[in-house]
Amino acid sequence: MNLTGEMLIGQQAVKGSRDPIQAINPATNERLEPSYPGGTQTEVDRACELAWSAFDSYRETSLEDRAKFLETIADEIEAIGDDLIERAVAESGLPQARIQGERGRTCGQLRLFAKTVRAGEWLDVRVDPALPDRQPMPRVDLRQRHIALGPVVVFGASNFPLAFSVAGGDTASALAAGCPVIVKAHGAHPGTSELVGRAIQAAVKQCGLPEGVFSLMYGSGREVGTALVTDPRVKAAGFTGSRSGGLALWQAAQSRPEPIPFYAEMSSINPVFPLPAALKARGKEMGKAFVGSLNMGAGQFCTNPGLVIALKGPELDAFVAAASAAVQGSAAQTMLTPGIFEAYENGVGALAGSGKAKEVARGQKGEGPNQCQTGLFVTSAQDFLSDEALQGEVFGATSLVVECADAAELERVAEHLEGQLTATLQMDDADLEAARALLPILERKAGRVMVNGWPTGVEVCDAMVHGGPFPATSDSRTTSVGTAAIFRFLRPVCYQDLPDALLPAAVKHANPLKLRRLVDGKREA
Amino acid sequence: MNLTGEMLIGQQAVKGSRDPIQAINPATNERLEPSYPGGTQTEVDRACELAWSAFDSYRETSLEDRAKFLETIADEIEAIGDDLIERAVAESGLPQARIQGERGRTCGQLRLFAKTVRAGEWLDVRVDPALPDRQPMPRVDLRQRHIALGPVVVFGASNFPLAFSVAGGDTASALAAGCPVIVKAHGAHPGTSELVGRAIQAAVKQCGLPEGVFSLMYGSGREVGTALVTDPRVKAAGFTGSRSGGLALWQAAQSRPEPIPFYAEMSSINPVFPLPAALKARGKEMGKAFVGSLNMGAGQFCTNPGLVIALKGPELDAFVAAASAAVQGSAAQTMLTPGIFEAYENGVGALAGSGKAKEVARGQKGEGPNQCQTGLFVTSAQDFLSDEALQGEVFGATSLVVECADAAELERVAEHLEGQLTATLQMDDADLEAARALLPILERKAGRVMVNGWPTGVEVCDAMVHGGPFPATSDSRTTSVGTAAIFRFLRPVCYQDLPDALLPAAVKHANPLKLRRLVDGKREA
Repeated sequence: MNLTGEMLIGQQAVKGSRDPIQAINPATNERLEPSYPGGTQTEVDRACELAWSAFDSYRETSLEDRAKFLETIADEIEAIGDDLIERAVAESGLPQARIQGERGRTCGQLRLFAKTVRAGEWLDVRVDPALPDRQPMPRVDLRQRHIALGPVVVFGASNFPLAFSVAGGDTASALAAGCPVIVKAHGAHPGTSELVGRAIQAAVKQCGLPEGVFSLMYGSGREVGTALVTDPRVKAAGFTGSRSGGLALWQAAQSRPEPIPFYAEMSSINPVFPLPAALKARGKEMGKAFVGSLNMGAGQFCTNPGLVIALKGPELDAFVAAASAAVQGSAAQTMLTPGIFEAYENGVGALAGSGKAKEVARGQKGEGPNQCQTGLFVTSAQDFLSDEALQGEVFGATSLVVECADAAELERVAEHLEGQLTATLQMDDADLEAARALLPILERKAGRVMVNGWPTGVEVCDAMVHGGPFPATSDSRTTSVGTAAIFRFLRPVCYQDLPDALLPAAVKHANPLKLRRLVDGKREA
Repeated sequence: MNLTGEMLIGQQAVKGSRDPIQAINPATNERLEPSYPGGTQTEVDRACELAWSAFDSYRETSLEDRAKFLETIADEIEAIGDDLIERAVAESGLPQARIQGERGRTCGQLRLFAKTVRAGEWLDVRVDPALPDRQPMPRVDLRQRHIALGPVVVFGASNFPLAFSVAGGDTASALAAGCPVIVKAHGAHPGTSELVGRAIQAAVKQCGLPEGVFSLMYGSGREVGTALVTDPRVKAAGFTGSRSGGLALWQAAQSRPEPIPFYAEMSSINPVFPLPAALKARGKEMGKAFVGSLNMGAGQFCTNPGLVIALKGPELDAFVAAASAAVQGSAAQTMLTPGIFEAYENGVGALAGSGKAKEVARGQKGEGPNQCQTGLFVTSAQDFLSDEALQGEVFGATSLVVECADAAELERVAEHLEGQLTATLQMDDADLEAARALLPILERKAGRVMVNGWPTGVEVCDAMVHGGPFPATSDSRTTSVGTAAIFRFLRPVCYQDLPDALLPAAVKHANPLKLRRLVDGKREA
């Protein structure tokens, strides 16, 4: 494995000069070579300059060329082979099979966006042809398409070192939209980032694209991250991470002389509502399955079920008993970084010490470093409603059960929730009316509402919404997973009376891209 | 004309208790009865409470019911008859024919949104059906639709007392999306606002909708406006007005515990680029036509051409001479309010006193109050590039010609521009290459690019973009005119494995709304 510790600025490899980042294998606390010195304003400038100069050309690449580029990135990532798996496992503490699956997801995602680019629906072409004889005023010829916003900064996430990182969903959707991308690598997996970054760099070259289409930088969020987000040539950013980190960068993006869209996916505790009939019929299996979801990836999924809301009573007690047994049997799992482990310990400690949440079960204690114990707590609806801290995300495999006295109190708890990525109903036929009463609340609270599943596991497809009201994300109008993510990086432009020779292909009169346009209010077949 | 000076809070009429607003006829400086006392936090609370309680029911009205409601509003506005025209003329100083045209536009806009609602494309339904046998993992059933964001606050604009006010584009698109609307009336035309507000109130009743679907308030932007924008039950806002007013409210919206989308359309000087061959062939006619656009509505259009950028030389001199003659022949026009007239005078004075812009022509001086003189100024590209103040919007019929030494300097000036609603090329066949070089810059700068037209006049249709990069608007991803404006008030929700009985109609398996869904990556016919 040939890792150099260099940043990738366009086609160049550049050694940084700031304090180095070095990955730590969380399973052993061993430092992994090489070290990655951080970048400075100089490299930020250079990356932004290259991205800016690549923008006009890259955004007008043909649909086919752009799709091929995305597919080439996927090919190049696969071509890294086992080195990528090995390094990502070492840097994340995640099991090999999970990383292999994540690589498949990452490459599948790039190929799905290639398909989306080719289909061209994202261009949203609308044509209102001239009506020279209209009374009292003629109508001019008006044509609309979407164009790319400009260079995009992507902040890699720690918890999916491939699928939400250098070549993850933000990068794939921004490149699909026609935006050059500058990635600020996550400090937890710089080696994985370099490997994937070099794959993208190679794809840029192979496809004959301007080098500024992609750059990769290391450094602190405070220094390099803020410098990137506030550079006037950057026109949008994508982020997945903590609420505090996301809000700080969001604030920087809003405080620019020209504010820009900053898509932060931050904080979600993903409530699960086991409804009465379901609880009665299968509370025990449900409790066990719930803990299965809770333990996925050591609880480090954005969609981890951190909250269970149900009616107090023997049915819920049975659910909690089964869940407690499963929690007690849960093996300790290595968390992503020592820092995340420490934050988890503090979060669980705060919950235990709150005087409002009762610990009912803890998982097995690990023997290695940075290993989390699963946790299960119970609280009353009254305490939950009166203490905002109980809604705080504890990133990791801990969940809180909220016992409600009746359906009205349960609805109050639901209404009291902050915005979420997901909301889950566990229901049987007899719960239909209760579900119907909750659905409008859950639609307002979450980007994805599901029945009889568990929130962990996010399908990459057209219909997915991985988003939701604040603070789940900073912009509920969007999704960061699935093909609709491309719309985050686009804006509409209208062309009035342009001669056909000047019109972009998407809106030319002869419709050379064979798009299904909206013409004079009617959708073409 | 039965005006009461009351606010409309749901189906109630409520007299405010704060300092009254009173309209002034700008043509006479006469105060118009009645006075409109401003609202307080009490009415803000009540309007928000009603809007919130109406939301879940209103957002699930059938497409047909919602379309009928929009059409009923249009009918009710027309039913006001001449009283509306008379009052709007008195409050705005705009000519009767213009107000009549604007009423037609306003009602046409409501009916166009009715058509858009019925067509249902805005629901953007995407279905990825379950694949239980997929390897290595089955796929769940995933369905996406758009739902309304929540109650929306609309700030009426001064310059289109009907089309951008109480029942204007923001209100029409928010209601179309399924959002209850609370309008903060513009202080310049409270009587027009009351008449239109009562028409909407009547339509709400006639259609049997919950009363909270619409409220209308008076008061200061600072007090009532901020209170509305920061109420937690409000989930988005639309604004058309000044840069300072827009930014202050935008800031309030971003500083909430839960930030919300704030769509401000603020400031644009709408550059016009007469290219060399066109300038040579028809500089004189062009100069005259340009001043026609400049004088539209006393220069008080958002798309007023406040900037002309061209190559220095005898061709441009001829254009300027023709424009100057037209300016000198321009009759004085009454501006919307004494305050707007004063700001115009100050803006023109600052330009004249800048030492960098040379006054080349002024229009005729009026005899009545608040009458503006058209103005034309010339500056060098060098001065324009070095002084940001020359890019400031002077709201009214004044424009600045920027003389460029060569094509490279002209491109530098174009790159130097802030975001705009529109950019206009005046070109002949021989200008094609020059236009091609400018187009990528103009696409980045403006929401609408046009050829051989003038920016004033904004068609309400599917392909229109009335938007653009900051500071033209606060969100370049949207438009405030045309049917795509509906997307400002929507967010996607994904439904996973819901039983058909629980699914909203738009995403039910049998597709009862007969929408063209995106199913498994393919668009239905």
